[in-house]
Amino acid sequence: MNKVILLKNRPKGRPSPQDFEFTEEEKSQIKEGEILLKTKYVSVDPYLRGRMRDEKSYIAPFEVGKPLESGIIAEVVESNNKNFEKGDFVNGMLQWKQFQTSNGNGLNKVDSKKAPLKAYLGVLGLTGMTAYLGLEKIGKLEKGETLLVSGAAGAVGSVVGQIGKIKGCRVVGIAGSEEKIDRIQEKFGFDDAINYKTTKEMKKAIAEACPDGVDVYYDNVGGEILDAALQNMNKYGRIINCGAISLYNKTETPTGPRVETTLIKNSILMQGFTVRDFVKDFGPAQKQLAAWMEQDKLNYMETVVEGFENIPQAFIDLFDGKNKGKMIVMV
Amino acid sequence: MNKVILLKNRPKGRPSPQDFEFTEEEKSQIKEGEILLKTKYVSVDPYLRGRMRDEKSYIAPFEVGKPLESGIIAEVVESNNKNFEKGDFVNGMLQWKQFQTSNGNGLNKVDSKKAPLKAYLGVLGLTGMTAYLGLEKIGKLEKGETLLVSGAAGAVGSVVGQIGKIKGCRVVGIAGSEEKIDRIQEKFGFDDAINYKTTKEMKKAIAEACPDGVDVYYDNVGGEILDAALQNMNKYGRIINCGAISLYNKTETPTGPRVETTLIKNSILMQGFTVRDFVKDFGPAQKQLAAWMEQDKLNYMETVVEGFENIPQAFIDLFDGKNKGKMIVMV
Repeated sequence: MNKVILLKNRPKGRPSPQDFEFTEEEKSQIKEGEILLKTKYVSVDPYLRGRMRDEKSYIAPFEVGKPLESGIIAEVVESNNKNFEKGDFVNGMLQWKQFQTSNGNGLNKVDSKKAPLKAYLGVLGLTGMTAYLGLEKIGKLEKGETLLVSGAAGAVGSVVGQIGKIKGCRVVGIAGSEEKIDRIQEKFGFDDAINYKTTKEMKKAIAEACPDGVDVYYDNVGGEILDAALQNMNKYGRIINCGAISLYNKTETPTGPRVETTLIKNSILMQGFTVRDFVKDFGPAQKQLAAWMEQDKLNYMETVVEGFENIPQAFIDLFDGKNKGKMIVMV
Repeated sequence: MNKVILLKNRPKGRPSPQDFEFTEEEKSQIKEGEILLKTKYVSVDPYLRGRMRDEKSYIAPFEVGKPLESGIIAEVVESNNKNFEKGDFVNGMLQWKQFQTSNGNGLNKVDSKKAPLKAYLGVLGLTGMTAYLGLEKIGKLEKGETLLVSGAAGAVGSVVGQIGKIKGCRVVGIAGSEEKIDRIQEKFGFDDAINYKTTKEMKKAIAEACPDGVDVYYDNVGGEILDAALQNMNKYGRIINCGAISLYNKTETPTGPRVETTLIKNSILMQGFTVRDFVKDFGPAQKQLAAWMEQDKLNYMETVVEGFENIPQAFIDLFDGKNKGKMIVMV
């Protein structure tokens, strides 16, 4: 029998274990052209919370009573498809099942000799490319500028900051614990860091950490931290709206200070962004990230949880910041 | 004696006649290299309200007790500068004085034979270029797309919509009276128009007028109309934040629904913008606008108020929408 995790209810506010349902199905037989995949590593990411809402977005919402899905590294255990051999490892958007069949569409083979398999869900995967392509395509970050990053100790934020340092920028991170503040400076080499949980006046704290103002703000959190960043943006500043984890669990439409006059005064850009907007740039992005990895210029951290049955809780824990870096479940 | 208009107080909320002071000074004598200018036409524009605040912005704030300034067409009445002759007309940022001296820096000669002098303050001046460059450089409007414009009967909005039609787009305008709604459809050729003063559900009204969604929103007003537009933006939609007249007279920081999750969901761009960001493109922009004028593709309207002493009131009237198209004072 094959274990499967379904969306039981659309979460109200913070997701809870009751929003997920474990079920079993018979293992499918593969047909001509198909492969049988065994799940090895499952990526859990904040953006999945958005897909649990019944709302039009860049990606179709999950359906209640149907399996959830996310980025997964799987092993090919049987193959009727000439492009895949038994023993290959693949990366793709796959369902939260122990085993599943696929015709191979949308799957990329990954090489376990070049990098640890898990890295393909993180720094060499969508996470790393989200950091790199957001900075390149929207931030257009240039040497000597000041880069501010929220969610700075997280999977995306930590890569964003390190790329900023590689590019010769002043990099300031925002995170929510002293341990994270230390980590982003010591392990990831940020120039300065702000603990938003112990800082009363974020606007002032950002101004002090960024004496030349902020040229690029890479935002993973939204909400009041975004408001404070906006008040510190330089003329022609760019804000990469990558995530808004502070708002994902809100049940009412959140309000805040209006942005339009601030944008006009300093010709500021805000651009919503998902890495899927730049699929055609994935090749060069992966190549650049892999090169920096080889040159030891990119550190990363992972929190690895073990066990298929712990996937929902690992996801829920993201909203308490329990992960250090990329959150991955090893099956 | 030479009449001058000073900023007496920084307005609180809506500007009032008491915020302006009329004074007189002796007419200056011109020195070597200088010219004496006689003010002919004065442009009054909503953005001047922003300069009356003591806030850092794209342009220095006005000083209390000092003369105000705006775009002005003036006649050269004396010249000690080899680049200008008596009888020339010039366009530039000049002070609200009947006469003033200048060394010629920042002034452009205008040709009264090619177009009426007033047109250089409107469709062929900063107003027309604001419309054109915002659409070109930020909106990147393409044939077949849907363009939504607020302040659509105004000086900038009416040109924006006409350029949209020239480019082969569906163009929908938003304005605040039945007369304006008729005007933008009949005189300016918009496909549809919405009277926001008589419409209860703007979000729904925009959805109905834009059955394929909105690709580019050219915003001159901000506030709740921007909120409604945001809810109708297509994937990869672009919002040109050119003005926020609905907020300029607010005394407290205005609040509204947060934008970040909406931006992320559909990879939407918001870009604050002032025409001065594109000074290097003024030449080609003016050429294109003049060509369209010659081909009878651009209509425009002006409200011309007579008398130097009426400049402040003409400015104040902008906030009641009393102008039809570009508001100009003829001295």
